[in-house]
Amino acid sequence: MTQQWSRKSAKTSSHMVSPLAPKRLPRMPAVAGVWLAAGEAGVRYKHRTDVMLAVLAPGTKVAGVFTRSQTASAPVEWCKAHLKKGAARGLVINSGNANAFTGRAGQAGTLDIAETAALAIGCRPREIFLASTGVIGEPLPAGRITRILKSLTAAARPDGWEGAARAIMTTDTYPKMATAKARIDGVPVTINGMAKGSGMIAPDMATMLSFVATDAKLSVGVLQTLLSEGVKPSFNSITVDSDTSTSDTLLLFATGQAANPSIATAADKRLDDFRAKLNEVLMDLALQVVRDGEGAGKLIRIDITGAVNDAAAKRIALSIANSPLVKTAIAGNDANWGRVVMAVGKSGEKADRDRLSIKFGKVLVAEKGDRAKRYDEAAATKAVSGLEVNIAVALHLGKGKARVWTCDLTHGYIDINGSYRS
Amino acid sequence: MTQQWSRKSAKTSSHMVSPLAPKRLPRMPAVAGVWLAAGEAGVRYKHRTDVMLAVLAPGTKVAGVFTRSQTASAPVEWCKAHLKKGAARGLVINSGNANAFTGRAGQAGTLDIAETAALAIGCRPREIFLASTGVIGEPLPAGRITRILKSLTAAARPDGWEGAARAIMTTDTYPKMATAKARIDGVPVTINGMAKGSGMIAPDMATMLSFVATDAKLSVGVLQTLLSEGVKPSFNSITVDSDTSTSDTLLLFATGQAANPSIATAADKRLDDFRAKLNEVLMDLALQVVRDGEGAGKLIRIDITGAVNDAAAKRIALSIANSPLVKTAIAGNDANWGRVVMAVGKSGEKADRDRLSIKFGKVLVAEKGDRAKRYDEAAATKAVSGLEVNIAVALHLGKGKARVWTCDLTHGYIDINGSYRS
Repeated sequence: MTQQWSRKSAKTSSHMVSPLAPKRLPRMPAVAGVWLAAGEAGVRYKHRTDVMLAVLAPGTKVAGVFTRSQTASAPVEWCKAHLKKGAARGLVINSGNANAFTGRAGQAGTLDIAETAALAIGCRPREIFLASTGVIGEPLPAGRITRILKSLTAAARPDGWEGAARAIMTTDTYPKMATAKARIDGVPVTINGMAKGSGMIAPDMATMLSFVATDAKLSVGVLQTLLSEGVKPSFNSITVDSDTSTSDTLLLFATGQAANPSIATAADKRLDDFRAKLNEVLMDLALQVVRDGEGAGKLIRIDITGAVNDAAAKRIALSIANSPLVKTAIAGNDANWGRVVMAVGKSGEKADRDRLSIKFGKVLVAEKGDRAKRYDEAAATKAVSGLEVNIAVALHLGKGKARVWTCDLTHGYIDINGSYRS
Repeated sequence: MTQQWSRKSAKTSSHMVSPLAPKRLPRMPAVAGVWLAAGEAGVRYKHRTDVMLAVLAPGTKVAGVFTRSQTASAPVEWCKAHLKKGAARGLVINSGNANAFTGRAGQAGTLDIAETAALAIGCRPREIFLASTGVIGEPLPAGRITRILKSLTAAARPDGWEGAARAIMTTDTYPKMATAKARIDGVPVTINGMAKGSGMIAPDMATMLSFVATDAKLSVGVLQTLLSEGVKPSFNSITVDSDTSTSDTLLLFATGQAANPSIATAADKRLDDFRAKLNEVLMDLALQVVRDGEGAGKLIRIDITGAVNDAAAKRIALSIANSPLVKTAIAGNDANWGRVVMAVGKSGEKADRDRLSIKFGKVLVAEKGDRAKRYDEAAATKAVSGLEVNIAVALHLGKGKARVWTCDLTHGYIDINGSYRS
């Protein structure tokens, strides 16, 4: 692993790809009313794209969820301030610099970019949405971005998804995209999304950078409801390293180019298929982020059942998912289920040791406060030795349940993060 | 570092020593009324001591603090149940197996050990205190311990401190001891303590294994008050990896062999010197645990000032101390203060980005929501490049403050914990 996740790969995001990467990139269809382009602004990286721009058709509605960090970035503040109107005509995302903790200069930078993009697209600055990802605390050279926005606007095309997804990568080893078709009252619509990972991932009622677009015609209220529900089992149920970003941003755009009837509330049955497909896209993207977690060698799924309630189950699941001792054991193919016991215990949530049972994959390793009667070390080791590891904890206290996803903790994480800025 | 913290050293705890280790071991004086011995029970390790026994004079009082883990070990439950009486005559600690999540067999094991020790010492089983450290979830071979307790009792000596401290080591690279002299109303007394680390360290109103003994004559109530106060700035202000152990146990014994007058309350001025010296011993031991954190290459001190209250300051300090991104950056001599901003932001505590300032050592790196005006990358890098790194965050919101201690996150941690059981 150390070799695979060398510093070189961490910096260039080109030589090596996570062993958990999807076998192939999805073919992204066009979404009516969305045009994309990517360019080389040289914000931090050389010889690669680092800015993406999306032009959105007039009438596009937008919903969003954001980091709860108390030190949120300038673009997050910009988006939150302008989300209320719910109208969007453009999106600009840069990598290499997070524009976080950058003071008034950072705010001025977001305004510059929004005004320049608005001029190029022909809309108001408040209809431009922004995100930045990269180093925190360094001044954003906004001028390098603004000077290419006009040409990006001219170059934007319906098939620019992959190029855009590549431009927002930082330590990501592959671009993250997902697509689905849905029907609303029989009318076909498309949902496309992209995301970037891959460290500082522990969303708190929000997510890392991701944007999803559909041609469906949906109100801002419906969009926001669908999005807020959809992030719970997806982006809000993943963690790479327990570190919540200053920049988490998930934006959902609906261009309204499809011919579906207007629908007043998110509870309308005619949205069932759309909701399901949107949730699929969100889950797909969220899992791609975990699969590209910094240094990740394994995808770990954690299922909690029988907690006193769902919130307790979620906290227990995250306590396991964020435990460096659990994550390093799994990295080493070590069926060290005692560390799972420890992580349940430290969560602060109610647990009765004498009812607790734990499975690795299909192998019962612990039950009723003790090692399983038919414990089989070889079978347990095998269950944690593959690329995907499932841990299930049953508390037998109530009906609360939760599922979260994480990755293991390897030398690759240390390599990447001991030298990220340099 | 990777070489220094090889798997070999992790297993044998003999070849390599943490670069942060104290230059020399303290000379431990005798404590009147305490006799110690160590032996090779072969619980898990071969060719090293793994059990220590302390014989305590009749009349010894005891106080304790323990893990808040919901899955606490059998010895923790034993100690909690018998602490109320406050009388102690013996202590048995083994390494190699935590006797946690071991069901009724685990409880039966603690009873066997207590009964056997009580028979050897000549006291009641409830006057024997117990602790175990090592792998969680494996049955404790209590018979290997009980069969040597009689000979250990016979061999116990007043100068057995270092041998005892070595017997309780697991991944520790050096034995942890501290000693101090104090006066109570003019009467000299001695305070000796020992502790073990060095992973699964994130005490929650408790601590990892540690035991402290004094010859002072003090009531159970006074002892417990002094101990509960003393752990706050020491053991409860350290973290290695955010993982709270199932076994955290700190016991404070007072043999009453000294000639000090009896003192009714902990608030009595005559205890001021004793309290100060006890706190010194606790702090010394706690810092030794961090200095031997698994894979540690640097000792990191985090000071928070200006939070809305002390509790908020503590949570912010721990959010920084437990951030893998902060810890890996420091390991890499990277003055990546943006990650400190991130960790403040994710803590959930009130912070005003535009008032926040951050120092690495004496170097101001961020102020008022922006990079410091006179930011000097070379000076900042130098400030994080030594064996000891001080991070100070001023929030400028109130008078809350906190200080916590941690270590960096290195390849050594991954090496040790990817193969701890095997």
